Amino acid sequence: MAKSPETEHPLKAFGWAARDTSGTFSPFKFSRRETGEYDVQFKVLYCGVCHSDLHMVKNEWGFTQYPIVPGHEIVGVVTEVGSKVKKVKVGDKVGVGCLVGSCRKCDQCANDLENYCPKQILTYSFPDVDGTLTYGGYSDLMVATEHFIIRWPENLPLDAGAPLLCAGITTYSPLRHFGLDKPGLNVGVVGLGGLGHVAVKFAKAFGTKVTVISTSLSKKEEAISKLGADHFLVSRDPEQMQTAAGTLDGIIDTVSATHPIVPLLSLLKPHGKLVLVGAPEKPLELPAFPLIQGRKIVAGSAIGGIKETQEMVDFAAKHNILPDIELIPIDYINTAMERLLKADVKYRFVIDIANSLKSE
Amino acid sequence: MAKSPETEHPLKAFGWAARDTSGTFSPFKFSRRETGEYDVQFKVLYCGVCHSDLHMVKNEWGFTQYPIVPGHEIVGVVTEVGSKVKKVKVGDKVGVGCLVGSCRKCDQCANDLENYCPKQILTYSFPDVDGTLTYGGYSDLMVATEHFIIRWPENLPLDAGAPLLCAGITTYSPLRHFGLDKPGLNVGVVGLGGLGHVAVKFAKAFGTKVTVISTSLSKKEEAISKLGADHFLVSRDPEQMQTAAGTLDGIIDTVSATHPIVPLLSLLKPHGKLVLVGAPEKPLELPAFPLIQGRKIVAGSAIGGIKETQEMVDFAAKHNILPDIELIPIDYINTAMERLLKADVKYRFVIDIANSLKSE
Repeated sequence: MAKSPETEHPLKAFGWAARDTSGTFSPFKFSRRETGEYDVQFKVLYCGVCHSDLHMVKNEWGFTQYPIVPGHEIVGVVTEVGSKVKKVKVGDKVGVGCLVGSCRKCDQCANDLENYCPKQILTYSFPDVDGTLTYGGYSDLMVATEHFIIRWPENLPLDAGAPLLCAGITTYSPLRHFGLDKPGLNVGVVGLGGLGHVAVKFAKAFGTKVTVISTSLSKKEEAISKLGADHFLVSRDPEQMQTAAGTLDGIIDTVSATHPIVPLLSLLKPHGKLVLVGAPEKPLELPAFPLIQGRKIVAGSAIGGIKETQEMVDFAAKHNILPDIELIPIDYINTAMERLLKADVKYRFVIDIANSLKSE
Repeated sequence: MAKSPETEHPLKAFGWAARDTSGTFSPFKFSRRETGEYDVQFKVLYCGVCHSDLHMVKNEWGFTQYPIVPGHEIVGVVTEVGSKVKKVKVGDKVGVGCLVGSCRKCDQCANDLENYCPKQILTYSFPDVDGTLTYGGYSDLMVATEHFIIRWPENLPLDAGAPLLCAGITTYSPLRHFGLDKPGLNVGVVGLGGLGHVAVKFAKAFGTKVTVISTSLSKKEEAISKLGADHFLVSRDPEQMQTAAGTLDGIIDTVSATHPIVPLLSLLKPHGKLVLVGAPEKPLELPAFPLIQGRKIVAGSAIGGIKETQEMVDFAAKHNILPDIELIPIDYINTAMERLLKADVKYRFVIDIANSLKSE
């Protein structure tokens, strides 16, 4: 018989877990491996609440393994390092994002693209190399291989910075990779949530002109005045969309609800790029003509590699880019999930782990 | 009242036209403009029969204007040049492809991408600058602006080479633009028709390893032995497709019937590119996950600019790349269209205009 989560490893750990597809969280005792020679152990201070956590706790993507301790926007302070660890030392601030492992041998890994390694190990609810499940950052401590540890910049706040580890890299990486990081380019951002609001901040920091595209006019004031977007388009207003046709070099589409992409393709200049980072459950409708006539591209992008994630947090520290967050205690997590489902948060919940997670 | 096609211009011209959506061709007297100072007049020798011609004569794309004289794979010999023409002289062999005009001022035109100019003028069934309709190469003579004239390489056969002006550039351009022209890359070609068989030849000439993907095993022998493809996949065989998953750097999809693209996305390596050059009438189903998980791209591409078209025919001449054709007389065109509809041609009909088109 397999050992229980509480006894399978030597280190006692404590967090909040969901046990079934209800997605309801409750306190959870489990265990973590001892700090290996290439491992870093750290005390978790803050953990962001990603929209993926919500999908995963309800098994909406079909590969959840229970009990699930979510959280892949984790920051903390190092408490122990293995004998061969060079990247960080005890007392350093560190982060862990969506990945805690990959094969380290394939073409993707060799090119610092662990995020596209077919053998990547996700930070939670995923089989680790020893067959046990990975547990995420809604917990008191983490043990992770040095390679997947991000050094935290000195001047970057730990609480507000945490969501950079998923929301940040998910938008930073495609802006870079698809060349949407050049001053003067016109970049669209679809959806103004956890991902979208960070996309606006990065795109502005790159010197691009940013157009926020949303179904709701109610977000205009916030997009322009608070986040610094240059333009705002209501996607349901055909006249506005027509006027803006052919003006954008690229679009980062963060919306994970099913939505029409033809109006977005119309906004692109010839050779423009529509990059999906939100994953609607149902297939999108893609007519070939708009792509062919303008040599346009529809692409996808998933988080980023470890090297690029480090580059991203360093860039964020240098340019004062911080997600807007609402700090919550761990025992608020069930309510937070309900609010997240209604998009009732500006723009990211972050759990104050160190000050609210208490083992009895 | 508008003048008739026969009298609106000074030069007498003769060809075969369809008068309505039946798409039935019959002899047609019309006229062309005199050779302006930047114009080239040439006697048409051969004209390829493109699948677009079939769509257009039946108004399947909704913008056909009748009477329509199709043909945009036109080669001939220069009979007159305007006083300011420098590119060619009387007696030179020349070609005209899908375009006879563009604004010559916009960003696209400035970058030799007239094919993406919003004011491009198509070679047939399209309003010309003076408001009259353009007529294509199923006719005895052409008059076109020097800029849109392609110089025909000395050693490139006129009859078999004609389809390069559409089928050739349509496949050459995306192979180049999307970086699928590097020796050793693995390139897929979907559909083995007019476009597909030329795509195989160009991809092989670039030094790539070519996999032909077809619904029908019957094309395997031809693809491998005759066209030189390295591999062949039956797209309806899940086992074959599974074995080949993740092996291709890019795919040129030439199929204009509605078809599933998810199996094609599965064939791509991470960061792989699926380029559509055939335009199915109905939208394709595009799930976001396969794109996101591998940072894959679905793109479109339309013919090529004039500079690149010249480069392409020069490359074809140097590497002995020729479409496989069936030469037909003009009075066979109605039968040819019926056969084209059934894909009963290997792989392109070319009309022997000079030897078969006789004005009464």
